[in-house]
Amino acid sequence: MIPLPKILTDAKHGEMRDFGLVTARVLDAEGHEGLGYTYTVNAGSGAAAALARELSGLLVGEDADCIEALWQKMWWQMHFVGRGGLASFAIAAIDTALWDMKARKAGLPLWKLLGGHDPKVPAYAGGIDLYLPLNELLDQTRENLESGLRAIKMKVGREDVSEDVKRVAAMRELLGSDTPLMVDANMGWSVDKAIIAARRFAELDVTWLEEPTDPDDFDGYARIQAEGGVPIAAGENLHSLPEFRQLIGRGSATFIEPDVATCGGITPWMKVARLAEAANLRVTSHGVHDLHLHLLAAIPNASFLEIHGFGLERFIRKPLIVNEGLAVAGEDLGHGIELDFKMLSTYRLDH
Amino acid sequence: MIPLPKILTDAKHGEMRDFGLVTARVLDAEGHEGLGYTYTVNAGSGAAAALARELSGLLVGEDADCIEALWQKMWWQMHFVGRGGLASFAIAAIDTALWDMKARKAGLPLWKLLGGHDPKVPAYAGGIDLYLPLNELLDQTRENLESGLRAIKMKVGREDVSEDVKRVAAMRELLGSDTPLMVDANMGWSVDKAIIAARRFAELDVTWLEEPTDPDDFDGYARIQAEGGVPIAAGENLHSLPEFRQLIGRGSATFIEPDVATCGGITPWMKVARLAEAANLRVTSHGVHDLHLHLLAAIPNASFLEIHGFGLERFIRKPLIVNEGLAVAGEDLGHGIELDFKMLSTYRLDH
Repeated sequence: MIPLPKILTDAKHGEMRDFGLVTARVLDAEGHEGLGYTYTVNAGSGAAAALARELSGLLVGEDADCIEALWQKMWWQMHFVGRGGLASFAIAAIDTALWDMKARKAGLPLWKLLGGHDPKVPAYAGGIDLYLPLNELLDQTRENLESGLRAIKMKVGREDVSEDVKRVAAMRELLGSDTPLMVDANMGWSVDKAIIAARRFAELDVTWLEEPTDPDDFDGYARIQAEGGVPIAAGENLHSLPEFRQLIGRGSATFIEPDVATCGGITPWMKVARLAEAANLRVTSHGVHDLHLHLLAAIPNASFLEIHGFGLERFIRKPLIVNEGLAVAGEDLGHGIELDFKMLSTYRLDH
Repeated sequence: MIPLPKILTDAKHGEMRDFGLVTARVLDAEGHEGLGYTYTVNAGSGAAAALARELSGLLVGEDADCIEALWQKMWWQMHFVGRGGLASFAIAAIDTALWDMKARKAGLPLWKLLGGHDPKVPAYAGGIDLYLPLNELLDQTRENLESGLRAIKMKVGREDVSEDVKRVAAMRELLGSDTPLMVDANMGWSVDKAIIAARRFAELDVTWLEEPTDPDDFDGYARIQAEGGVPIAAGENLHSLPEFRQLIGRGSATFIEPDVATCGGITPWMKVARLAEAANLRVTSHGVHDLHLHLLAAIPNASFLEIHGFGLERFIRKPLIVNEGLAVAGEDLGHGIELDFKMLSTYRLDH
């Protein structure tokens, strides 16, 4: 369990004080290595670790280059207790490690192995700041702009929509008209309330409204998008390809937001990206930005990379840098992420 | 991990040798008790136990009669790692224990607390017998008939549909025209293959075709049902109310089959039953038949109770009895199920 630098709040997860990190390392017979990870919020770290351990037994002796076959094997082994949900977290950690190893073996950075479109990806700061007083929210935003970010996301979903509108208006004033501003309601609203809120945000030129209501209500999302007049971003709580097919196929969102660490890994993440491309939609990301930089750099329909607020970069030897609003994928082999396991070991739970 | 009396096979889960059982006991301040359980196949027993343990901490000091409030609390605590999937297994065990305790406190058998419709529920034998030679399949069926069963389900999904048809025809001949015969493909087919198979089974007067293809393909299910001409049963792999809403709302099945041990417990199971009732559909069950007897006896739209083949009854002090095709819910308080923990302890894993 990794403590957060400060307590974070959003509309549905309450106060978050820490998160769980589950890592997976794969090794092949020639000594190649790959690293993957997933993370949990509020609960489930021990369970995710237990599932990953069970899955690891399936891989021994298999051909590590046939990731699709291994992914299917893991998916079906977990199907009775899975079909998404927590099983997708565990599969994600291992799948990511396999892709990392494959890229290293190929002598390529991951984003090139996966396609290689454009190493420069626009990034935004994903603030987790629902109950931050307005002056602190504005200070935080100034810091983000100073550190090179040129797009900002803030939380909404306070008791009264007009409070949210006031905060968004203040942010728009600070940012001026050229800086993209996104808002994230973390499932806090009913469909009707979300439509009312979206119409107010539309006047403030909001780039997207994220997760306005329950992620299972695909029809509700389509209504909010059509009637609210603001593009919808969604996907962080979906954990399988068929769930994304529904989100995309039913016109429920414009910015598709799979989280590679919780949707089953790079294998399904790339399929989701292709589904979105075929539907003329753009892909953003949620969480684990050092990984997502490679995925968004690989595809032609990337929108923004979220710079997530959990502070995992404290444990990464060379965390990504944002300059003039852009993160740039480099030439290190694989994803190039080295976790500081010594530092992490301080927080280790022996599940 | 509980070994199965014999190795069982179906079209997708391969050879099953054992299953995981996770139990939950709740106690209130006055000394009342309740018992619940869930089970896992192929993987996930340790993870489910870890989740249930995490959930148990949420209940301490709460009002045990407000099960809806507790269920929501558990659901949202697990939402980031859940939205169904394995989280629903852990929630199910605890939710079931809470309902058991509430019924005991009310001095009622569970089926009466939940509504009380008809204690007599038609039962069928759920054979897990895909690779049983035909003569053994017929022998097993004769035994089932001798033991009081008057409806039988068999597995289909062999490599060649005509093999399945031959086996189903032989079963129909043995059973005569009056005994309901169901078939279960355990997700083994594509939609087109399922339609072809369904049309052949229709001629053999099959009561339902169960899980012909991937449970996420709700539109595919609707096609199979409409074009195949056999009612579809589905639901054992769905783990949330919104998933059942899709199954029901899109005309994907006629016999709705929630598993109380894997769909989140009695609280959502009853909601699924009401959704089905509103749509003029009937409810059947999957697994844990001693529990499901109470649920089906409570509702007006019950169809058949599955007598499941995992043999959990070996560990239950008074397992249900089927007589002339009927299981009858009794007057014991709660669900009345006492597990033999001493016998179970032989198979205990210390997760």
